[in-house]
Amino acid sequence: MTTPVEYDDAGPEVRAVYDEIMALRGVADVNNFWKYLAHDPVELRSVWETLRDVMADGALSPEVKELIYVAVSIANGCDYCVASHGAAASAKGASAEMMNEMRRVVAMASRTNALATALRVPVDPQFQD
Amino acid sequence: MTTPVEYDDAGPEVRAVYDEIMALRGVADVNNFWKYLAHDPVELRSVWETLRDVMADGALSPEVKELIYVAVSIANGCDYCVASHGAAASAKGASAEMMNEMRRVVAMASRTNALATALRVPVDPQFQD
Amino acid sequence: MTTPVEYDDAGPEVRAVYDEIMALRGVADVNNFWKYLAHDPVELRSVWETLRDVMADGALSPEVKELIYVAVSIANGCDYCVASHGAAASAKGASAEMMNEMRRVVAMASRTNALATALRVPVDPQFQD
Amino acid sequence: MTTPVEYDDAGPEVRAVYDEIMALRGVADVNNFWKYLAHDPVELRSVWETLRDVMADGALSPEVKELIYVAVSIANGCDYCVASHGAAASAKGASAEMMNEMRRVVAMASRTNALATALRVPVDPQFQD
Amino acid sequence: MTTPVEYDDAGPEVRAVYDEIMALRGVADVNNFWKYLAHDPVELRSVWETLRDVMADGALSPEVKELIYVAVSIANGCDYCVASHGAAASAKGASAEMMNEMRRVVAMASRTNALATALRVPVDPQFQD
Amino acid sequence: MTTPVEYDDAGPEVRAVYDEIMALRGVADVNNFWKYLAHDPVELRSVWETLRDVMADGALSPEVKELIYVAVSIANGCDYCVASHGAAASAKGASAEMMNEMRRVVAMASRTNALATALRVPVDPQFQD
Repeated sequence: MTTPVEYDDAGPEVRAVYDEIMALRGVADVNNFWKYLAHDPVELRSVWETLRDVMADGALSPEVKELIYVAVSIANGCDYCVASHGAAASAKGASAEMMNEMRRVVAMASRTNALATALRVPVDPQFQD
Repeated sequence: MTTPVEYDDAGPEVRAVYDEIMALRGVADVNNFWKYLAHDPVELRSVWETLRDVMADGALSPEVKELIYVAVSIANGCDYCVASHGAAASAKGASAEMMNEMRRVVAMASRTNALATALRVPVDPQFQD
Repeated sequence: MTTPVEYDDAGPEVRAVYDEIMALRGVADVNNFWKYLAHDPVELRSVWETLRDVMADGALSPEVKELIYVAVSIANGCDYCVASHGAAASAKGASAEMMNEMRRVVAMASRTNALATALRVPVDPQFQD
Repeated sequence: MTTPVEYDDAGPEVRAVYDEIMALRGVADVNNFWKYLAHDPVELRSVWETLRDVMADGALSPEVKELIYVAVSIANGCDYCVASHGAAASAKGASAEMMNEMRRVVAMASRTNALATALRVPVDPQFQD
Repeated sequence: MTTPVEYDDAGPEVRAVYDEIMALRGVADVNNFWKYLAHDPVELRSVWETLRDVMADGALSPEVKELIYVAVSIANGCDYCVASHGAAASAKGASAEMMNEMRRVVAMASRTNALATALRVPVDPQFQD
Repeated sequence: MTTPVEYDDAGPEVRAVYDEIMALRGVADVNNFWKYLAHDPVELRSVWETLRDVMADGALSPEVKELIYVAVSIANGCDYCVASHGAAASAKGASAEMMNEMRRVVAMASRTNALATALRVPVDPQFQD
């Protein structure tokens, strides 16, 4: 169960998703995330289609979206996601200094999040609207 | 203890920090976060100085930094921080559509973070370097 | 300290718990979780007795309880627990499709949890009672 | 921004989703979650369609899926979701005793998750496959 | 369901636990936590007995144990627990300065936890033993 | 990027911090945490100076502060931090029994945190002040 589904061993539903991922990203293989998720072809397709749409260029650039993705993955403690989306952020143009600054923000947000929770700070009236 | 320290009741160390916050932000009062943290003037100064530096313009814009801050606050479940930094993001230029897209990314990252953890996906060799 | 306590090296309090676990589960050895916890025989007994009672057949079947256990372990990011209780869920009768559906629910709950927190949605009056 | 979008004020895309929710659930209004999410009609539709499919009857009953949903929401600390999906679990047939047992499992999983993390327990070889 | 069980309305199993709590703590009533948990008398007794033993004087003082309890509650984002165990810590002798220092530690631990996760720092060999 | 910065390869800003850490702690090398953080010399100095001050002797002893640090790291699921600060706690005088008791508190706090969240317990009026 906890083994990757390689392209050659995949059924047509899974291959179709792999093909779309490889075509959109211009890569020759998909990441482990997809290969492990492929044991559930329904979820594979649902996640892929939603992720593709959510991460597309829009009001926020793909680069900024990846930085946010990595930041959330750090906060959620997902080691795989930190590694894979960190690489994606760099591939989409985030410089080492951008990554450093992103990590500084994540770290300070975690510190102040803890303090706001610890002090049970009530929301200011002007932020309630 | 869980009451805000208002400017008029604050000692000189606390007032000095409040003055710096109000001057840099061009506001007439500080948020509840600072007023509740002010019972610990040492931490108040430490947090303020670090936050000021971390959130300053750099390789990432203040706007992008605030979006990351809100994203982390959502992941950490800090209601106060979601409210206050959401307002800050808007004040620094984030449009409603940018906020929508940031939330979509946070939500999908949370979904895929859960799946990667659930499936115990091993990190791909190319992400280990 | 961070080494397992094997049966042959264990004192009588620890052996007694190991014996109960092996007898109830019909296995020849206990999992690493118990062997590492055994450095604290007081906690070992407390956790074992409570877990045994909580996971017993009741209004919910042992299978459903294990699915809930895995779901919580995913949300809490406990890799060991995802692995060991995933195996336990299968052993108690959860099919691969049940596991897939459980993971889909966990993933979507994580997505909507993030959105509800992000949007600061107030609880509907009908849910307050 | 943080106000609900009521049906009468909603555009056609949002109304269409509201109509589908009300029809499937046989209710006269939608919950606050949807009304706050409706400021982002794209995400509203995406979340609704995925949630509808994920929570449908399958290898797991809708009742068990709701219990898992509540369990994850507790672990993620989402107060709104605990309230709304707790009500949904009851509506779909979960008895008070089932809810009690679910909560006992969540609580003990949280305790043992913490212990496994604290003790840095290595995954047993038989769980690695 | 989400209402407190007051002493006068409680059955004998619940009253027995309430009596033990009030006797040990020298108080005239129990906190809301117990009154809401009392809808599940089995869990009520299990939690009370374990908590009583875990929080008793030992190698760590009750005061230090409460400080750890509050710290964990902050990290887990449990508002009720931060409030109730914060009060308990003070009642058991923790000064305002101790509380300040505890919060500083929690906040910095949260910051460095995030950084260690972000940087995927491998455990040093000397910490593996 | 995800490689340690060794002393011999470090620039003067990084070496200065390493020197301070080694001098204060009386050790011949710094931990991996610092070596991975050193790719961002600004954050390296900021974290080191704040951590040094926060963890110094005060109203709470360094030993108790380390116990709180480990407790938070467990709750946040940071494996590296559990390992390194567990070692630090022992080095500063925490006995095996103290570590056991700390872990028992963390585990029970996690259990009751989950229950308080699950039951949506309102804060008692006497804890609101």
